[in-house]
Amino acid sequence: MAQKSKFPQVVIIGGGFAGLEVAKQLADQPVDVLMLDKHNYHTFQPLLYQVATGSLESESIAFSLRKNFSGQKNFRFRIAEVSGIDLEENIVKTDVGDIAYDYLVIATGSTTNFFGNKEIEQYAMPMKSIPEALNLRYLILQNLEEASLKTTKEEKEPYLTFVLVGAGPTGVELAGALAELRNHILERDYPELGKEHMKVYLVDFLPKVLGPFSDEGSAAAKKFLTGMGVEVLLNVKVESYDGEEIKFEGGKTIKTRNVIWSAGVMGVVPDGISKDVIERGNRISVDSINRIKGSENVFAIGDVAAMISDETPKGHPGVAQVAIQQGMLAGKNIIRLIKGEPTEPFKYNDKGSLATIGRNKAIADLGKIKFQGFFAWLIWMFVHLVSLLGFRNKVIVFINWIGNYLANNGGSRLIIRRFKREELPKKDRQLAKAD
Amino acid sequence: MAQKSKFPQVVIIGGGFAGLEVAKQLADQPVDVLMLDKHNYHTFQPLLYQVATGSLESESIAFSLRKNFSGQKNFRFRIAEVSGIDLEENIVKTDVGDIAYDYLVIATGSTTNFFGNKEIEQYAMPMKSIPEALNLRYLILQNLEEASLKTTKEEKEPYLTFVLVGAGPTGVELAGALAELRNHILERDYPELGKEHMKVYLVDFLPKVLGPFSDEGSAAAKKFLTGMGVEVLLNVKVESYDGEEIKFEGGKTIKTRNVIWSAGVMGVVPDGISKDVIERGNRISVDSINRIKGSENVFAIGDVAAMISDETPKGHPGVAQVAIQQGMLAGKNIIRLIKGEPTEPFKYNDKGSLATIGRNKAIADLGKIKFQGFFAWLIWMFVHLVSLLGFRNKVIVFINWIGNYLANNGGSRLIIRRFKREELPKKDRQLAKAD
Repeated sequence: MAQKSKFPQVVIIGGGFAGLEVAKQLADQPVDVLMLDKHNYHTFQPLLYQVATGSLESESIAFSLRKNFSGQKNFRFRIAEVSGIDLEENIVKTDVGDIAYDYLVIATGSTTNFFGNKEIEQYAMPMKSIPEALNLRYLILQNLEEASLKTTKEEKEPYLTFVLVGAGPTGVELAGALAELRNHILERDYPELGKEHMKVYLVDFLPKVLGPFSDEGSAAAKKFLTGMGVEVLLNVKVESYDGEEIKFEGGKTIKTRNVIWSAGVMGVVPDGISKDVIERGNRISVDSINRIKGSENVFAIGDVAAMISDETPKGHPGVAQVAIQQGMLAGKNIIRLIKGEPTEPFKYNDKGSLATIGRNKAIADLGKIKFQGFFAWLIWMFVHLVSLLGFRNKVIVFINWIGNYLANNGGSRLIIRRFKREELPKKDRQLAKAD
Repeated sequence: MAQKSKFPQVVIIGGGFAGLEVAKQLADQPVDVLMLDKHNYHTFQPLLYQVATGSLESESIAFSLRKNFSGQKNFRFRIAEVSGIDLEENIVKTDVGDIAYDYLVIATGSTTNFFGNKEIEQYAMPMKSIPEALNLRYLILQNLEEASLKTTKEEKEPYLTFVLVGAGPTGVELAGALAELRNHILERDYPELGKEHMKVYLVDFLPKVLGPFSDEGSAAAKKFLTGMGVEVLLNVKVESYDGEEIKFEGGKTIKTRNVIWSAGVMGVVPDGISKDVIERGNRISVDSINRIKGSENVFAIGDVAAMISDETPKGHPGVAQVAIQQGMLAGKNIIRLIKGEPTEPFKYNDKGSLATIGRNKAIADLGKIKFQGFFAWLIWMFVHLVSLLGFRNKVIVFINWIGNYLANNGGSRLIIRRFKREELPKKDRQLAKAD
C-alpha cells in the first residue's frame, strides 16, 4: 500500500474540516499524502439538520474526497476503517491493510456522547453523519405516516411528539425546523393530522439555550423558539428513555417515539493511543502545535484534540473554525518539521458564532457585534453557502433555500429506505449507525 | 380506515406514471381517492441509470406523492404493502389494514424478470427502483475502490469489468454512461487505475440493440456505443453467473464482479387475481377499457396490464406513454361508469421513442421522422425535463446536466451507505431489494 517514493508519507485519518485543510496545505510540497476515511465524501455537518427534516438532499451537503483532490498530484485516497495505530512502528492498521507513515494526522472528529446510558443510546437518535441524518428523517416521516393511521388524539400524540435533548446549535436548529414543519406543512401534506397533535420540546440541563453564545443571543433564540411553539425546558436532566416514554429527574415524563440526542459529543480515538493522553470528552491531549503529547510525528486536530493550557483550560470548542485553523497550521508545521525549520504554535482566531432558528430568524454573535433576526439569517445563509464544498452544491442548496422560502414547504421529504425502528434494540444500533 | 363519505371510494395501488394520472383525472369529481404505495414518492424511472452512475442525486428524480396531491381535496395517501385483493368482498389487504373499495385500479408496474434463474437473480443487479439504483451505484463505486487496492492487471480487471445484459434503452443508456465514466473520469479520480483496465460489455440475445427502435436508430446506437469503447455482443444468451464469472451459451466467459440485468420485466400482480387472467410476462389480461377480464369495477393499467387484441397481439409496450394514457382514460371511464355514461375504449397514441447514449448522442424515432446525434440529444433532455415531477426537480436536474456537460465530470459519485455484496447470497436479495 505504501507509496514507493523518496518523499515522506503523510497519512491523514479523516476527511472532515480538519483533515481537508491539512491535505490542501500539503499540495505541491515534497511529501506524499494519503487520506483515509470510512466514507468517500466530506460531510458538511452544519447542514445535517436540514437533511434530517427533508429540506435538503443528502448529496448536496456531501462532496467526493477523490474529486476534491483530483488536481493534487501528491494526493491519494482510500476508503478505510482504521482499527488501530502502532505508534512505535509508525503504522496505521486498517481493513484494507497496514499503512506506514512518516507523519500521521488524526482528524477523526467526534461522535455522539450518550454518557454511558445504554438504554438511551439504543432508542434515542443521534445526528452526526449523513446516514444518521437520513435515518432520523425516515423515522420522523414514518411516524407522521403512523400517526395518520391512528384515530384518537391519545394514539396519535406519541408519534407526533419530538423531544430534542441538548439545546446547542444542533438542537436549536432542529427544533426550529420541526416547528416550521408543524406550522406550515403538517396539515397540508397530512390532512388526517392537526397542528394541535404535534409537539416539539427542547430540553437542556443548563439554564440557557445556545450555552456558549452571549446572553443576548441566547435570550433571543429562546424567544424565537417559544414564538414558534417550541416548549423549551431548561435546568432539566434526562433520567431514562425506553423508546416509549422519556423521564426527567424530578418526575416529569413525556410519551414520545422521537427522542433526538444532541446533548454531548466525544472524540473518536483510534486504538493504540495511551489512556494517559486522553482528556475529558475522550479527546487526545496535544501540545501547542497539535502533536500528541510524547510524540514527534503524530498530530491530533479538530474535535478529537484537546489543547489544554492556561488560556484554554478545557481545550477549544468543537467547532468547524477550530478544526479548519488547526488543520491549516498542522499542514504548515509538518513542512517546517521536514525542512528543519521552527514550528509555530496554534492560536485560535474566534470569528464568532451563528445559529439559525427558522425563516428570517438567526442569531449572530460576532465578537462585540451581536444581532438577531433577518440580517443575521442572511449572514448565516451566506457563510454556510460559501463554506460548502463544490460549486454545484452551493448552487443546488441555494436553489433549495429559495424554493423553500418562496413555497414555504420545506423541501421534498422522501423516505428512500424505510427505517425499522423496532429492530434497534436487537441490532445494537448497527442500523442507526454509519451504514 | 375507509372514509366515511357518501362518495364512491376509488383505491389506486401504485404511484407510478399510470396511478398518478388516474388520481389527477379524479380531482374535483364526486369520488374519494385513496392511493397506496410502498414508497411515499413517485419515481421517474427513465433517469434511474443516472442515479446509478452518480450523475444525479436520487431525490431529484423522486417526488413526494403527498406533496404532489396536497391541493387535491378528495385525495388521501397511505404508505402500504399490499398483500392481496379480495375481488368478491371488494377489499385490498395491506400491512396497514383492510381497505374497502368501490373501484380499484391496479397500477403496480413491473419488476425485473430473471426468467427463473435463481443464481443470476442472486448475483446480478437489477435497476427498477431508487434503492436498487443506489445499491448499484454503491457496488460500482466500491468496486472501483477495490480495484485501486489491487496491484496486477489480472486482479484489477474483474472489478472493472461491467456486463450489461439486455440492450434495451436501460442497458444502452447505462452502457453509454459507464463508457463516459471510463473515458473521462476514471484516471482523474482514481490515479491508481487506467482506462485500459475497464471494460463495458452490452449483451443481448437479439440481433440488434434497442430492439423496438427502427433499424436506422438501432444501427446508430450501436455505432455510438462501439465508438465510445463499449463491446456490443449480440445474438448471445447468458447461461449462468456465479458472482465471479458470467458464462454464455457457446462457451464464452467473462470474469466480472458487475453484472447488471435489464433483460426483461414482469408484471407485479397482487395475490387474489386468478391465474386464468394472467398473460405472458405476468401481466393481467384486461378488456378494451383496462378492466380485469370478468370484473365490473377493477382496472389494471400500465406495465401490469396486457390488453390483447387483434391489433396488439402481445399487448402494449411497457413504456411510460402507455401507462400515462391508460391512467388518464381509466380515470375518465370510472367517472363515466359512476354517472352511467358509456365508456371509451383505449387507443394508444404512439408519440415515438427516444434513447440517449451520451454527450451529444441520442436516438429519436418519432413516427416517420428519425434522426440521431446532437439534436436528438437536446430533444431527449427537453422531454425528460418537462416530464419530471416538481419544478425544483426540473431546475436541479437541469443544473446538474449543465454542470456535467461543462465539467465533463459526471456528477458526485458518493457512497452514502456501503453495499455489502458478499451478503447477497445469504440474504436472499433482501438487501438489494426495496429497503
